Amino acid sequence: MPTLVIMRHGESQANRDNIFTGWSDVALTQKGVAQAHAAGKIIKAANIQFDDVHTSFLKRAIITTNIVLDEVGQNDIAEHKSWRLNERHYGGLRGQNKLAVKQRVGEKQLKIWRRSFTVVPPKLTKRDEDPRYDRYGVKIPLAESLEMTMQRLIPYWVDQIAPKLLAGKNQLVVAHGSTLRALIKFLENVSDEDIPNVEVPNGKPIRYDFDKRLNIVAKQLMAK
Amino acid sequence: MPTLVIMRHGESQANRDNIFTGWSDVALTQKGVAQAHAAGKIIKAANIQFDDVHTSFLKRAIITTNIVLDEVGQNDIAEHKSWRLNERHYGGLRGQNKLAVKQRVGEKQLKIWRRSFTVVPPKLTKRDEDPRYDRYGVKIPLAESLEMTMQRLIPYWVDQIAPKLLAGKNQLVVAHGSTLRALIKFLENVSDEDIPNVEVPNGKPIRYDFDKRLNIVAKQLMAK
Repeated sequence: MPTLVIMRHGESQANRDNIFTGWSDVALTQKGVAQAHAAGKIIKAANIQFDDVHTSFLKRAIITTNIVLDEVGQNDIAEHKSWRLNERHYGGLRGQNKLAVKQRVGEKQLKIWRRSFTVVPPKLTKRDEDPRYDRYGVKIPLAESLEMTMQRLIPYWVDQIAPKLLAGKNQLVVAHGSTLRALIKFLENVSDEDIPNVEVPNGKPIRYDFDKRLNIVAKQLMAK
Repeated sequence: MPTLVIMRHGESQANRDNIFTGWSDVALTQKGVAQAHAAGKIIKAANIQFDDVHTSFLKRAIITTNIVLDEVGQNDIAEHKSWRLNERHYGGLRGQNKLAVKQRVGEKQLKIWRRSFTVVPPKLTKRDEDPRYDRYGVKIPLAESLEMTMQRLIPYWVDQIAPKLLAGKNQLVVAHGSTLRALIKFLENVSDEDIPNVEVPNGKPIRYDFDKRLNIVAKQLMAK
């Protein structure tokens, strides 16, 4: 029975400062580094041999991945990075403090921008330039809803993760709050109405065990 | 013109303690971590966009790689790990202090074991067990000469690195003293007699620029 473990990166500087981030490449805080070490120890205790780890292009996820692999003692496994696992692009909200946004637009609108499935945040008027994405022919979004995030994430699941699970290879995914919400929505068939209530905390691994046809047999929060 | 940068990991605990290590998986020292950061800054200043980085299964190389990529600002590039880039297996010398070995067998014999091309160090009588290698069908050597190290390294060069350079993609290799000596011997046609004089210090990147047929156009020590 193949096993999947998913986890969100440790606390980033933007998490600490309560700022919308998205594709901006911010570092982990010291607390985030400690969360990554703690998560690695929890995963190690579960005694799962992984074949692959998947992460985004963003250093908060990559550094978390590297710390976790070292703690688990599986530095040698194949590490795959993709922009498809990047955090949702928050468009014009990027760089803004969430409390300041709430004071400006109200709690209800803030919650819609943060948690709704279909609503797109205010779009950037000028596309971000970053040569890292040009190299892969990726157009950086002007803003993404969770739905748009899911649409660009799921091809990665279908092409790169699911086939390996179907081949009996255990997989680890270290990604972001919204990409993991989108993945959970897909895996568990969470409705558009219920997805606003799904939250994924920093550095808390979640384990899925599947049957041979990738039906979920068990789900376990590995840390409280 | 494709560019290759090779570098040895930062100082490991075994380097610090002057101990033969080989395939044993020892950590970097604080000095080694600092060397990795410094090397990353030097490589960043050279303004080379890499397509791939290649490293071994050993954490002193992997952690160095991760630090360097972060410093260079190229966390997103593909990271390939192979046992073929592992340090030479020192057989029965593994775990022994080099000074103690010198006192026991004399300086000349020590130098032969450390630096000769063909001489195999004392073989282990029992093969190491490590499930990380079982997963790839690799039999851990009982001991390796530099020649044996080169024989298992070069297929990796031919299959995984040279084709990417030939396609114009710049490559970074973060590996070990003996694997890099073997690679330098291969790239520069160093004779068996001269190879004992080639040393590769910790954390000092070396740059090769090639022509389109992979002839060396320039070699540069990027750090003193």
